[in-house]
Amino acid sequence: MNRMDVTEKIISTKVAKGLRWADVAAQLGRSKEWTTALCLGQMTATAEQAEALGGIFGLNDEEQRWLQVVPSKGSLATAVPTDPLVYRWYEVVNVYGSTLKELIHEEFGDGIMSAIDFSMDIQREADPKGDRVRVVLSGKFLPYKDY
Amino acid sequence: MNRMDVTEKIISTKVAKGLRWADVAAQLGRSKEWTTALCLGQMTATAEQAEALGGIFGLNDEEQRWLQVVPSKGSLATAVPTDPLVYRWYEVVNVYGSTLKELIHEEFGDGIMSAIDFSMDIQREADPKGDRVRVVLSGKFLPYKDY
Amino acid sequence: MNRMDVTEKIISTKVAKGLRWADVAAQLGRSKEWTTALCLGQMTATAEQAEALGGIFGLNDEEQRWLQVVPSKGSLATAVPTDPLVYRWYEVVNVYGSTLKELIHEEFGDGIMSAIDFSMDIQREADPKGDRVRVVLSGKFLPYKDY
Amino acid sequence: MNRMDVTEKIISTKVAKGLRWADVAAQLGRSKEWTTALCLGQMTATAEQAEALGGIFGLNDEEQRWLQVVPSKGSLATAVPTDPLVYRWYEVVNVYGSTLKELIHEEFGDGIMSAIDFSMDIQREADPKGDRVRVVLSGKFLPYKDY
Amino acid sequence: MNRMDVTEKIISTKVAKGLRWADVAAQLGRSKEWTTALCLGQMTATAEQAEALGGIFGLNDEEQRWLQVVPSKGSLATAVPTDPLVYRWYEVVNVYGSTLKELIHEEFGDGIMSAIDFSMDIQREADPKGDRVRVVLSGKFLPYKDY
Amino acid sequence: MNRMDVTEKIISTKVAKGLRWADVAAQLGRSKEWTTALCLGQMTATAEQAEALGGIFGLNDEEQRWLQVVPSKGSLATAVPTDPLVYRWYEVVNVYGSTLKELIHEEFGDGIMSAIDFSMDIQREADPKGDRVRVVLSGKFLPYKDY
Amino acid sequence: MNRMDVTEKIISTKVAKGLRWADVAAQLGRSKEWTTALCLGQMTATAEQAEALGGIFGLNDEEQRWLQVVPSKGSLATAVPTDPLVYRWYEVVNVYGSTLKELIHEEFGDGIMSAIDFSMDIQREADPKGDRVRVVLSGKFLPYKDY
Amino acid sequence: MNRMDVTEKIISTKVAKGLRWADVAAQLGRSKEWTTALCLGQMTATAEQAEALGGIFGLNDEEQRWLQVVPSKGSLATAVPTDPLVYRWYEVVNVYGSTLKELIHEEFGDGIMSAIDFSMDIQREADPKGDRVRVVLSGKFLPYKDY
Amino acid sequence: MNRMDVTEKIISTKVAKGLRWADVAAQLGRSKEWTTALCLGQMTATAEQAEALGGIFGLNDEEQRWLQVVPSKGSLATAVPTDPLVYRWYEVVNVYGSTLKELIHEEFGDGIMSAIDFSMDIQREADPKGDRVRVVLSGKFLPYKDY
Amino acid sequence: MNRMDVTEKIISTKVAKGLRWADVAAQLGRSKEWTTALCLGQMTATAEQAEALGGIFGLNDEEQRWLQVVPSKGSLATAVPTDPLVYRWYEVVNVYGSTLKELIHEEFGDGIMSAIDFSMDIQREADPKGDRVRVVLSGKFLPYKDY
Repeated sequence: MNRMDVTEKIISTKVAKGLRWADVAAQLGRSKEWTTALCLGQMTATAEQAEALGGIFGLNDEEQRWLQVVPSKGSLATAVPTDPLVYRWYEVVNVYGSTLKELIHEEFGDGIMSAIDFSMDIQREADPKGDRVRVVLSGKFLPYKDY
Repeated sequence: MNRMDVTEKIISTKVAKGLRWADVAAQLGRSKEWTTALCLGQMTATAEQAEALGGIFGLNDEEQRWLQVVPSKGSLATAVPTDPLVYRWYEVVNVYGSTLKELIHEEFGDGIMSAIDFSMDIQREADPKGDRVRVVLSGKFLPYKDY
Repeated sequence: MNRMDVTEKIISTKVAKGLRWADVAAQLGRSKEWTTALCLGQMTATAEQAEALGGIFGLNDEEQRWLQVVPSKGSLATAVPTDPLVYRWYEVVNVYGSTLKELIHEEFGDGIMSAIDFSMDIQREADPKGDRVRVVLSGKFLPYKDY
Repeated sequence: MNRMDVTEKIISTKVAKGLRWADVAAQLGRSKEWTTALCLGQMTATAEQAEALGGIFGLNDEEQRWLQVVPSKGSLATAVPTDPLVYRWYEVVNVYGSTLKELIHEEFGDGIMSAIDFSMDIQREADPKGDRVRVVLSGKFLPYKDY
Repeated sequence: MNRMDVTEKIISTKVAKGLRWADVAAQLGRSKEWTTALCLGQMTATAEQAEALGGIFGLNDEEQRWLQVVPSKGSLATAVPTDPLVYRWYEVVNVYGSTLKELIHEEFGDGIMSAIDFSMDIQREADPKGDRVRVVLSGKFLPYKDY
Repeated sequence: MNRMDVTEKIISTKVAKGLRWADVAAQLGRSKEWTTALCLGQMTATAEQAEALGGIFGLNDEEQRWLQVVPSKGSLATAVPTDPLVYRWYEVVNVYGSTLKELIHEEFGDGIMSAIDFSMDIQREADPKGDRVRVVLSGKFLPYKDY
Repeated sequence: MNRMDVTEKIISTKVAKGLRWADVAAQLGRSKEWTTALCLGQMTATAEQAEALGGIFGLNDEEQRWLQVVPSKGSLATAVPTDPLVYRWYEVVNVYGSTLKELIHEEFGDGIMSAIDFSMDIQREADPKGDRVRVVLSGKFLPYKDY
Repeated sequence: MNRMDVTEKIISTKVAKGLRWADVAAQLGRSKEWTTALCLGQMTATAEQAEALGGIFGLNDEEQRWLQVVPSKGSLATAVPTDPLVYRWYEVVNVYGSTLKELIHEEFGDGIMSAIDFSMDIQREADPKGDRVRVVLSGKFLPYKDY
Repeated sequence: MNRMDVTEKIISTKVAKGLRWADVAAQLGRSKEWTTALCLGQMTATAEQAEALGGIFGLNDEEQRWLQVVPSKGSLATAVPTDPLVYRWYEVVNVYGSTLKELIHEEFGDGIMSAIDFSMDIQREADPKGDRVRVVLSGKFLPYKDY
Repeated sequence: MNRMDVTEKIISTKVAKGLRWADVAAQLGRSKEWTTALCLGQMTATAEQAEALGGIFGLNDEEQRWLQVVPSKGSLATAVPTDPLVYRWYEVVNVYGSTLKELIHEEFGDGIMSAIDFSMDIQREADPKGDRVRVVLSGKFLPYKDY
């Protein structure tokens, strides 16, 4: 058994039971973004969180234990994603990558925006011309220092 | 001459004159995000915008004309970016890609978040534990329909 | 179980029963293009469509449910397709890609032809020198805007 | 000197003179699709066509001669195109590739749709919900035969 | 079940029974080149051919039916083949590719040598310095035309 | 200076003077296939052959000397060729690669068809349904031996 | 069943029984280099050799038959090997590749060192500063000839 | 200026003057293998060696100084070499890689054959059936140790 | 059975029993770095070590035997690692690779830092601004020598 | 002009003047590791540091200004480095990557070792069996947190 087996069981159960990630997150008391990433094998649960998920998805002890093991992360099957929704995000990095780099450096100097001390919030933005997806990303700025 | 020559001249002049993208954007009356993307060869200018940039960066008529030609977009040199700042964004797509897909589909159904009818806003978020980079992405949801 | 299992069952049943996609589509009341893409795991069914396909291909409840889950799209096994029929399409993009870009921009300005708000129609075109395949692609033009 | 030098000169002159591909095509008496592909280094001109283009773009004898040499074709810089407009076409091949294969085989049997005995027509399709790009592709069906 | 399963069964049976492709072809009344390609999952059988192969390799009805389905073609596991015999052919394309292009264009003008309306014949050529493999490839020339 | 410079000069002169490879080969007294490969930087000339080519293409002493240096071979810019004519040959290797392997081994046992002790002959084959390209490849069979 | 299954059974049995390749080779009466390559699925056995290996590794008739089928060769899982021992050999080709090319051409003219009419001998070379691995490679020189 | 410029000058001069690597090596008093690798930009010269090569190839002080700088090594343009002579070596690693690994481990245990404490010797081996290239590689065995 | 099966069993048992690598190492009397690498299929055990691990992880005789077979090394699934922790190490090689090369050559001359005669030590470094990971790598310097 | 031009000028001047990185670092009053990374185009200088380097390497005002612009980082030409010294580091990540991941997670939980808040120290370690390279890497641990 490995973490991927647990992820597959969670997804399978979610489809079979018709669950929603937002409801799972509410039961866990965490954001839907982090909770979904956890369920999809990208984050690590505490024992309590694992137990709670165990209740929702019918996971046994060993499966709950795997949720507490730090997973090998990365959810893209290929370097350039083929799924249209995910590709649009890759395209944003491709088209706006140099812009992001220039503007963050202009404001903060040399360094990066952390992808670890990081959170994400996804919301529907009502718009008469068609609703929009609004995603807020927040990451700590980490400066390079000389030494 | 091609668009890349104009981009290089803009960047070179910016370094030589010590300009800031935010100031360039203010002179253009557009956001700093779109303006930087334009200057880095990813967007297309109107004649007025080209002229304004011409004044700032000392571009002649032919160079201004190239700013009005739709460029061949994409600012990454390799499929997986090597620069640490840009890589962190690729990592976000890699680690959170499946999460983004699940949550947007849960809220909107099958479709994508547009990377064309799209805007981006980058801000400093003061934080006693270290300032954060806050990026808001807003893209129209485009549904797949059956036919 | 996942969507790919359902796709394989559909294809297997189609061969075993000697069905035609055009007939499946007629039973669904949708175009043969969209219906085939749905059956091949690229589109998402409504509950009614899933039930109809369930009847045709002998799919149980769980399998029908999977047809209603947004799939991870992309039907090429490699970045450059090896199958001769599919490769010819890749070759069209390769040889005519810059032409498509130039002419769409000339007519519409900067933006893209949507692959989401998109439809496709494949017909036989009788021709004394050998029949032709005629494919009509229709996609909404989405403009880049400054902001 | 090689064909790429001629292509670059044509594009450069087009931008400098503000020409349109549609007008160039009209002067040549050929479709705008084929003419643009020719100017972008993908097709081969006759002596008359080369002379006509020579007049429009100011090409000397040697440059006109290069237009009559069969070029090494392929206009994508990478196997997966990075430009958003061109990528959407690659995505169509990726998402609908298996559908195209199934439906063409269902109608015609084993074989391919030729990308050589092939033509393309790009039109604006007025639509109150936003104009559409309509592209008609027509390629001769070539059957595999046993021997 | 899919075509690959049938291919594997054919190969397995051929080894177990010690059959020769040339004999299989003779029973089918087709060339050994086309017959082998069919058995290896690259070509499509008629019902009669499928039945004949069914007799030779002990294929049941469903397996025979798969032989009549147009397969997804391509028999190389990697873009550059690793097997020494197959690599030598790739090397010929690599070393002589530009030569083939130049000489076919010199003789026929712009176009291609079809790989669909195509046949292949492999023979032993006795030679006192060591026998040679003689392969004759014949493909229809398909011209690019302007339009 | 290197061999590639000489190759480019030869091609450039050929276009400028309107020469044909077949005529160049006749002047050299060698086949058009080998001669073209030599001119395209894939083969090595003797001093006499280099001098003869020097006369035809206006090559100076140093350039003639480079024709006598064994070149670094390989004429494809990418692992999978993008030019349609050359790609069709790659496709033949892809679709028929396993067939070639099976039939050559069936006739000769384990070994390869040499791409070194090798010759190629390209001819037009008149055909009322459209002329064909006929290519004969002849390579010595080299057996693997145990030791 | 295929050759890979036989290779895995041989390796598995070797570990379970604690056999040495050198002893297997001695029983076969062939070199340890060729014998190991045969057992690892890279060479083809005669019926006698297959029977002998069948005795050593407990292979049944069908498995012995597979040893006599020419395998699809190539034992690297990736184009650039990841195993440190095998990588050092790749590094030798990388660092000394141009040197090998220059010196073999200087001595023999244009052509190659055959990897088919080829043998390899691996020995321990005692050395007070640490024993060395001594590998002798011997391959027939095959000249390119004009024609 | 960089090391590659010096390498190109050395090769260019060698062709222009018609020198042989073996003679260059003799003047340096080192093996032809190491000397060629040095001249091709893979090894580092002492001041005396640089001066000697400076005399042979007409290198000025700065160029001689570059010969004494440790170069960035690697002489293959692509991961899989396209030149037939160099490819045969890659093929040896591919076909015999697992054999080399097994036999060196059988004799020495876990570790590698060094590509640094390494030497190479290339000789002609006269043979009535065609002369052979004989290459002796000698590398120190370096064991992995536990700690 | 192969080494990978043993690795999976070890990891699975470790999660099920809640073991720590540091404790496993203490039982083995070796460093936690080497012990973990051994358990993850990168190193080779002695019979005693295999037996000890057999006791800890419940491995039978055949599984213990596999621990004593030199494994095929390399623990990355892709050339560029996707896991954020492992990627940071790849990034260090990417950003500091040329620096490492320059400084080691400046101190030692041409050669490498061995990855075989090598050890690694990972420690927590308490720091009021947040604890740090301190990794000491020690590898023998191996010089290139002329010959 | 861009940063790469400045890097090349620095390296060129260093070779021409025979400077050492350690001495450059001493003049800057920073570590040799950071200083070398700065000079090789991976770090960003303050105005004072740029001026100091300007004095050492003869850089004019514009060149000094480029040293203060955040560079696009990454010093490997290919995803898998070809230079033997740099490759050994890649190999360490490959062979020990999973070990690093396991042990850092065991000690710290889920998170990464920062490559930004990071320093490196390279020293010679005298050893009677051959001197060793000792590299100490220190990076802040950054935990993933739920939210």
